[in-house]
Amino acid sequence: MSDIEIAQQNEAEEMQPIVKVAATVGLSEDDLELYGKAKAKLSLPTLKRLQNHPQGKLVLVTSINPTPAGEGKSTVTIGLGDALRLRGQNAVIALREPSLGPVMGMKGGATGGGYAQVVPMEDINLHFTGDMHALTTAVDTLAALIDNHLQQGNALNLDPRRITWRRVLDINDRSLRHVVLGLGGATSGTPRESEFDITVASELMAVLCLASDLADLKARIAKIVIGYTYDRQPVTVGDLQVTGAIAMLLKDAIKPNLVQTLAHTPTLIHGGPFANIAHGCNSVIATRAALALGDIAITEAGFGADLGGEKFMDIKTPVLGKHPDAVVIVATVRALKYNGGVKLADLTAENRAALATGFANLKRHIANMKRYGVPVVVAINAFTSDTEAELSDLKQLCEASGATAVEADVWARGGEGGLALADAVTAALNQPADFTPLYDPAASVKDKIATIVTQIYGGGEVVYDHKADLALRTIAKNGWANLPICMAKTQYSLSDDPKKLGAPTGFAIHVRDIVPRLGAGFLVVMTGDVLTMPGLPKHPAALDMDVSADGVISGLF
Amino acid sequence: MSDIEIAQQNEAEEMQPIVKVAATVGLSEDDLELYGKAKAKLSLPTLKRLQNHPQGKLVLVTSINPTPAGEGKSTVTIGLGDALRLRGQNAVIALREPSLGPVMGMKGGATGGGYAQVVPMEDINLHFTGDMHALTTAVDTLAALIDNHLQQGNALNLDPRRITWRRVLDINDRSLRHVVLGLGGATSGTPRESEFDITVASELMAVLCLASDLADLKARIAKIVIGYTYDRQPVTVGDLQVTGAIAMLLKDAIKPNLVQTLAHTPTLIHGGPFANIAHGCNSVIATRAALALGDIAITEAGFGADLGGEKFMDIKTPVLGKHPDAVVIVATVRALKYNGGVKLADLTAENRAALATGFANLKRHIANMKRYGVPVVVAINAFTSDTEAELSDLKQLCEASGATAVEADVWARGGEGGLALADAVTAALNQPADFTPLYDPAASVKDKIATIVTQIYGGGEVVYDHKADLALRTIAKNGWANLPICMAKTQYSLSDDPKKLGAPTGFAIHVRDIVPRLGAGFLVVMTGDVLTMPGLPKHPAALDMDVSADGVISGLF
Repeated sequence: MSDIEIAQQNEAEEMQPIVKVAATVGLSEDDLELYGKAKAKLSLPTLKRLQNHPQGKLVLVTSINPTPAGEGKSTVTIGLGDALRLRGQNAVIALREPSLGPVMGMKGGATGGGYAQVVPMEDINLHFTGDMHALTTAVDTLAALIDNHLQQGNALNLDPRRITWRRVLDINDRSLRHVVLGLGGATSGTPRESEFDITVASELMAVLCLASDLADLKARIAKIVIGYTYDRQPVTVGDLQVTGAIAMLLKDAIKPNLVQTLAHTPTLIHGGPFANIAHGCNSVIATRAALALGDIAITEAGFGADLGGEKFMDIKTPVLGKHPDAVVIVATVRALKYNGGVKLADLTAENRAALATGFANLKRHIANMKRYGVPVVVAINAFTSDTEAELSDLKQLCEASGATAVEADVWARGGEGGLALADAVTAALNQPADFTPLYDPAASVKDKIATIVTQIYGGGEVVYDHKADLALRTIAKNGWANLPICMAKTQYSLSDDPKKLGAPTGFAIHVRDIVPRLGAGFLVVMTGDVLTMPGLPKHPAALDMDVSADGVISGLF
Repeated sequence: MSDIEIAQQNEAEEMQPIVKVAATVGLSEDDLELYGKAKAKLSLPTLKRLQNHPQGKLVLVTSINPTPAGEGKSTVTIGLGDALRLRGQNAVIALREPSLGPVMGMKGGATGGGYAQVVPMEDINLHFTGDMHALTTAVDTLAALIDNHLQQGNALNLDPRRITWRRVLDINDRSLRHVVLGLGGATSGTPRESEFDITVASELMAVLCLASDLADLKARIAKIVIGYTYDRQPVTVGDLQVTGAIAMLLKDAIKPNLVQTLAHTPTLIHGGPFANIAHGCNSVIATRAALALGDIAITEAGFGADLGGEKFMDIKTPVLGKHPDAVVIVATVRALKYNGGVKLADLTAENRAALATGFANLKRHIANMKRYGVPVVVAINAFTSDTEAELSDLKQLCEASGATAVEADVWARGGEGGLALADAVTAALNQPADFTPLYDPAASVKDKIATIVTQIYGGGEVVYDHKADLALRTIAKNGWANLPICMAKTQYSLSDDPKKLGAPTGFAIHVRDIVPRLGAGFLVVMTGDVLTMPGLPKHPAALDMDVSADGVISGLF
């Protein structure tokens, strides 16, 4: 059965009213704003109340560098939550929201797979509770207000060539990557070049995910730089005097969404910034709510541990005020063999040598995460093609690197398939953690970048393009240098070359540009080409989708 | 107090759970999909069940041509519903959904005013239940799929210069009226000129509003023409094989939304196509639900009776399979004096002569609506500046034109202020109606247009631009000539010149172009310049909006 078929069968048979799921973590119907019977938002007063709750332990799920073989990070995260519940632990899951663009293109949704899914998967993968649409509207309303400012006399002296705020759609639309807008004469705007991004790549998504509450959201929105004047002074949303309007458009999007796994584990799904151009973690508000509601909160970070993992530790942790108590790194035998040079078509054949070679990638990520002073568990997401010998090799290699490794078979068996992982994670949570951040934000920008490149990526030199040097000057001039670093790098390699698998060393990282994100509170370091508006493939998934006269969806995956 | 203050005070004190409101028209909680405590969608099975219910009577609320003085059509519609309930009638209201773009610009929302409002007004005027966002996403996903078709080899031989499908945003953004997209080289699309509309101007909105159910929605979507091949053959959504995906994105948007007035009258708010470029009425599905749930269903049409009113009769009525049993025309003394030549600043002064002159506009609309064989009531929406003499004159003028006229003071007094109107409407509903459509759809396109222009507008000649003649040839060649006509004309005048107030005669109407809308099932006749993407004003309403740390909105109006 496909993921959607498993989900639909279970939704019909077993999905509980969300008020019942909420009750298992002490939430009453008054704490919820229902969206249908199976989805709800936590109300603002409830979120406020939860801020004073004692906090549970935090588990961060991350992974090796993604490969075409698939790792199943969300699936393991969900299965781990279900398994902990089976062991009698009060576990709560906190995930990112899917983006609709990739769903219509080629990627599956972000709701896990098999018997480790969150439901209702169709709703979550489509419009859900409208957060993504509210963000799109807020981003594009701000853009319209900026162009209208030019139209109505440009009192702020904004340079049309230096507007950095981009419109977005939650759609994979390559035709909007580079546009000329404002054509058609004096009543239809100022002609200028511009770009559209996918919604999750917008700074506003990162802002929403790092905000503590509505007041903090407003403070962050006001600080967003939308462009520069003709004399190169930054212009902010606050300068435009539209902070209130933009925050107003997000008044519901700021509230985390509660759904359930197929096993009824309470799951907060909220926020989903890119893990390259942004920090790739779900919202601080939802993570805090999960920590308040659960004795164990399980969350994931985007892409591999070099991107989402590092950023969780160095960008999200300081804002959250809470570091992970244990880290789970998801790997598969298949993906490690791919890292060891095996072609996609040959991954089902046993190949212990390639596994040993490809393990270098996982080994680097284990060392990187352990470096933060937090216990690390490796979850080997099981595939039927894995052989006993390969699994045994992999476990030994992990142990030798200082991490417990356990198989997880949650796709096929749900929480039952994750009991060993749950036990290993519980043991890790009982170990002492001595969290140490990677760098001091007060260090120079170049020092912070060098630290990430050498200590996390295993690289050597950092090469700065002229544009990046100019950006460093702007950053210094405006006093923005003490912000943490958000590396925008390919997710497929520890280097900035997606073809370099395994654990390359000695490579140079090329910094093209550095983009200050004052609202989010980080500096985005652009390396290589980072695509912020995906395209659709030759055969988009949309061609196979349908909805019946009774509203039943098919072909979503 | 402002509208939002009245709404917020009453929401806090008196708004009922929507399940309670639903119960007053026989709907159980199982019939609803809740969106918070005060909003709900009717489920698909419930809508199916309601199709077999006996239908109540239908009241259509329309108005004179809009003026800057304001007429208050929605306010009167809501007040009439409340008043009928006070008289013990089972009234249900069916309104259009507001567009967010104008809300951020200068227009008030579409939720009525004073003590005749639907609530929660902030939610309804902002993201509501996400219908508008789902439409935006569906329209733009279709656009991305079209450009991707070009990108991936253009198997359908689509002419990039003749793509007629436009992207949309629910935002007033003049900078997107004329754009060049697809720049940036071979991997970023095919460069071409294009335009963005506001969401409510898209054919897909009209399609959603005219569809009977999901199956009909799909059939209509498949028929939408998105462009032409190099050899001028129409290309449809069905040809692109993405009908299922686009319909899937609207699976929730197709369900009508239930809210309440301040007096708890059940109100369905669903769909909101432009009344110039489209037919300007709420959805057929919601109107049918209102007819099934209420003994009297009250609905409104956009702009004046020449646009929304005519289109209700000739486009919506045949699809609905039910004609209005009575028509209410909303007018104000102020607006009629404006039609009589008085300037906006002088409207508070008594001016019986100007009223008598300006009455020509209302008189034409009364005659037009009576022409359909349906009883007509004039609602005089009261303003404090109206004098006894003016009101008495106006009533006499209406009586002489064959329509009962009654004052309605619902803004200040809610349903209590609409009792006389309710009684007049009830009397009208007891009169026999003998509905006669204006034209036979099988007539030639030019004949149908001439009928509307001469019999409704009071005009003479119809002048066709070369482009319109070419369009007529395309329409004839493809067998589309038997579709009803959807006039795209300025709302401010019975003519195509917004400055011609009152009841002009003998004028010519200039047809620039005729756009076939095969999914909606009408031919849009473009006269003059019809703006399908509004702009923001010098001081956008957004500048005065805010949300407090507790989520309370201010400055929405």
